[in-house]
Amino acid sequence: MSFKITAELLEKITAYIDSSNNRAIIALFEEMHYADIAEILEEISFDNSIYLIKLLDSEKTSAVLTELDEEIREKILQNLSAKEIAEEVEELDSDDAADIIGELSEERQEAVMSQIEDEERVKEIEELLTYSENSAGGLMAKELVKVNENWTVLKCVREMRAQAEQVTRVHSIYVVDDDEKLKGRLSLKDLLIASTKTAISEVYIPKVDFVNVHDDLDEVSNKMRKYDLEAIPVVDENCILLGRITIDDIVDVIKEEADKDYQLAAGLTQDVEADDSIAQLTKARLPWLFLGLLGGVGAFLIMVLFENSFNENAVLFFFTPLIAAMAGNVGVQSSAIIVQGLANDDVKGSINSRLIKELFLAALNGIVLALFLFLFVWYYEEKADTAFAISISLVAVIVVAGLIGTFVPLFLNKRGIDPAIATGPFITTSNDIFGILIYFMIAKLILGI
Amino acid sequence: MSFKITAELLEKITAYIDSSNNRAIIALFEEMHYADIAEILEEISFDNSIYLIKLLDSEKTSAVLTELDEEIREKILQNLSAKEIAEEVEELDSDDAADIIGELSEERQEAVMSQIEDEERVKEIEELLTYSENSAGGLMAKELVKVNENWTVLKCVREMRAQAEQVTRVHSIYVVDDDEKLKGRLSLKDLLIASTKTAISEVYIPKVDFVNVHDDLDEVSNKMRKYDLEAIPVVDENCILLGRITIDDIVDVIKEEADKDYQLAAGLTQDVEADDSIAQLTKARLPWLFLGLLGGVGAFLIMVLFENSFNENAVLFFFTPLIAAMAGNVGVQSSAIIVQGLANDDVKGSINSRLIKELFLAALNGIVLALFLFLFVWYYEEKADTAFAISISLVAVIVVAGLIGTFVPLFLNKRGIDPAIATGPFITTSNDIFGILIYFMIAKLILGI
Repeated sequence: MSFKITAELLEKITAYIDSSNNRAIIALFEEMHYADIAEILEEISFDNSIYLIKLLDSEKTSAVLTELDEEIREKILQNLSAKEIAEEVEELDSDDAADIIGELSEERQEAVMSQIEDEERVKEIEELLTYSENSAGGLMAKELVKVNENWTVLKCVREMRAQAEQVTRVHSIYVVDDDEKLKGRLSLKDLLIASTKTAISEVYIPKVDFVNVHDDLDEVSNKMRKYDLEAIPVVDENCILLGRITIDDIVDVIKEEADKDYQLAAGLTQDVEADDSIAQLTKARLPWLFLGLLGGVGAFLIMVLFENSFNENAVLFFFTPLIAAMAGNVGVQSSAIIVQGLANDDVKGSINSRLIKELFLAALNGIVLALFLFLFVWYYEEKADTAFAISISLVAVIVVAGLIGTFVPLFLNKRGIDPAIATGPFITTSNDIFGILIYFMIAKLILGI
Repeated sequence: MSFKITAELLEKITAYIDSSNNRAIIALFEEMHYADIAEILEEISFDNSIYLIKLLDSEKTSAVLTELDEEIREKILQNLSAKEIAEEVEELDSDDAADIIGELSEERQEAVMSQIEDEERVKEIEELLTYSENSAGGLMAKELVKVNENWTVLKCVREMRAQAEQVTRVHSIYVVDDDEKLKGRLSLKDLLIASTKTAISEVYIPKVDFVNVHDDLDEVSNKMRKYDLEAIPVVDENCILLGRITIDDIVDVIKEEADKDYQLAAGLTQDVEADDSIAQLTKARLPWLFLGLLGGVGAFLIMVLFENSFNENAVLFFFTPLIAAMAGNVGVQSSAIIVQGLANDDVKGSINSRLIKELFLAALNGIVLALFLFLFVWYYEEKADTAFAISISLVAVIVVAGLIGTFVPLFLNKRGIDPAIATGPFITTSNDIFGILIYFMIAKLILGI
């Protein structure tokens, strides 16, 4: 039942293409899901992809285009004429159409738009292109089923049959007044159960969740998730119904956002995959490693500064990896909790109250860990003062690292910057440097050298 | 429009409860969404929560229970009698009912089940409780709309009206044969459009995605996401229709899985939130920090081993934080890519081919970084041999760290262990130790001391 790409399948397809056996190709793809076809296109050669896209009808290939990796799609679009792209776009829902056109250069956009015959469609796409990618407007589709509150159920069912032909999935029927203002909703189920003579105004549910067209996608996804919605209407400032967002698009938003945060925390430039080329992977990894290298050089320079004070205390230098590791770990832990809380709209209270909580938390953790370290150093080196200096420094380092890890994402968020960039190598590297500096300063103070 | 908990609202509720103003409470909660009520319960005192749960009717509170934090729900359930819990459970869909009953002790489970009057319901819950929590069976609901392939559209609409009363949302109508085997599906839209005399066997869509009741939830969510499904039927080995899974539950699975992976990568025991108590946060953070502490002690012991060889080369010790940081960062990067690829079912090919790719990738990154480090050390210390030794060591450390980071999650996954535990402090700590060991061994070899 499940579709799996096999080497045999790919060979078969390549053989068909090589022998221009178009009938066999069409038969093979006839029953295949567009998401599966997209997977195949990503595995075969680029020329063969173009061949298939041009061969299969646009009803099939348009949906395939929406599923492709952005990079591959871009390359394919460059090899299609404006007329061909227009044909694909005409098959798509308005949101997918706008996404594809939005990826083209301005010049190409105009060329493609002039080839689209349906004027209504052109207007819809132009409207959608005006919204920011991260707003409700940037994700919504214009396709929806709406009925007037003054209609009867019978008229509604008739109108709906016509509208529903255009809409892939009907979740809710939206009820509007004569000014197109959103008044409420009606489920298909209610419509099936109600008598045909009933007025819509008597049966619709006036309580309907909606979002503003300029709302952030995070807000939209939190709302749909919280209220288990499968679709949500999008309105403007005057409550005029503009479009709707469906849960399948929000699922992709949630997944992409989670992947991005995870990659940032792991020190990867976003949107890289295990199967990408070594060049792409290097591009994603090297900048963050370079940041780490600079941090290491910073730590080196700090140690050089303290070199003379510690001729007799080489052991202090042997604990620098421990100090750096603890500073890094605590920083990542505290920033990750804040980043996740912000994403889930869970972080209440002021920055100060957060910092005070983290202060206690980090101090508690630090004291427990420092106790262990004290016992180890005391036992191993038999110098109580060194053990004491190292342990006190550890507590200080952990507290500062926790505070930095808590403060930076809150600060970035307040400034409207994605707090997720604060996790990973960024926080680790700065905490490494601060940690080692604090460590040596306190050790020097306590040991009096 | 959006619901926000305010201090005033909470004060008002507390005042109503203190004055036992039940009518005002019921009026206040009348129009409120259950997810909002759940948020309120999490903010007020425990006694007040119990008061509200007992006061409001179970139609309302049953849904609230499903939205609560597991910990709070558990405490509330302990304060309800078996009869009260049975009343709540009877209001819920079978999947939510089974989830709540599954959280009770065996003794309580029996007590509650004996209080449920509907025998069909008891059987459904008992069936659902037999499936593993991470399988399709553990998430599916028994409620669905199914019709026999031999019916007409008219009979189907009539039967459906009866069935639909029980089902919160109708996504698809599933078509079965006389043996309850899944044959295909029918959309509500198709039914609305078709003539009433048509036979179902003529209009249903025989191509239907489904999952096996024992399939892993990751598989289910990848399939629903890939094919943009809003519901998927669940069948047993003989293709008998057992239940269905809806996208809103899968959204929660995706979100929880992502949060868990993110927390593991950040060194947090899963399921902790910014608003949890200091004790809970310490429990989530301290074990991983302790692991880091042991790693630091390991690094210390390695340096002690090499102490005598390097009387003249203190500078080598100053680069240990750099070496540890690079080993840690590379390890996290490579493991994160694998963990994410495995979660998205994206990692094809053998472990060996992955390791060879990582070998080249890490070597390339390592050489670029080592070149910078060589120039810095050469310029700063004016010792080409030391600079050379440190740089070569860095390349070796990065390659080994990359290989460990790639191998460990692939190995764990092969053993059926969640690879996500390989990221974060676990990989960082082991890479720190290996990194510093390799660094000193190579440096000793090259400098001949």
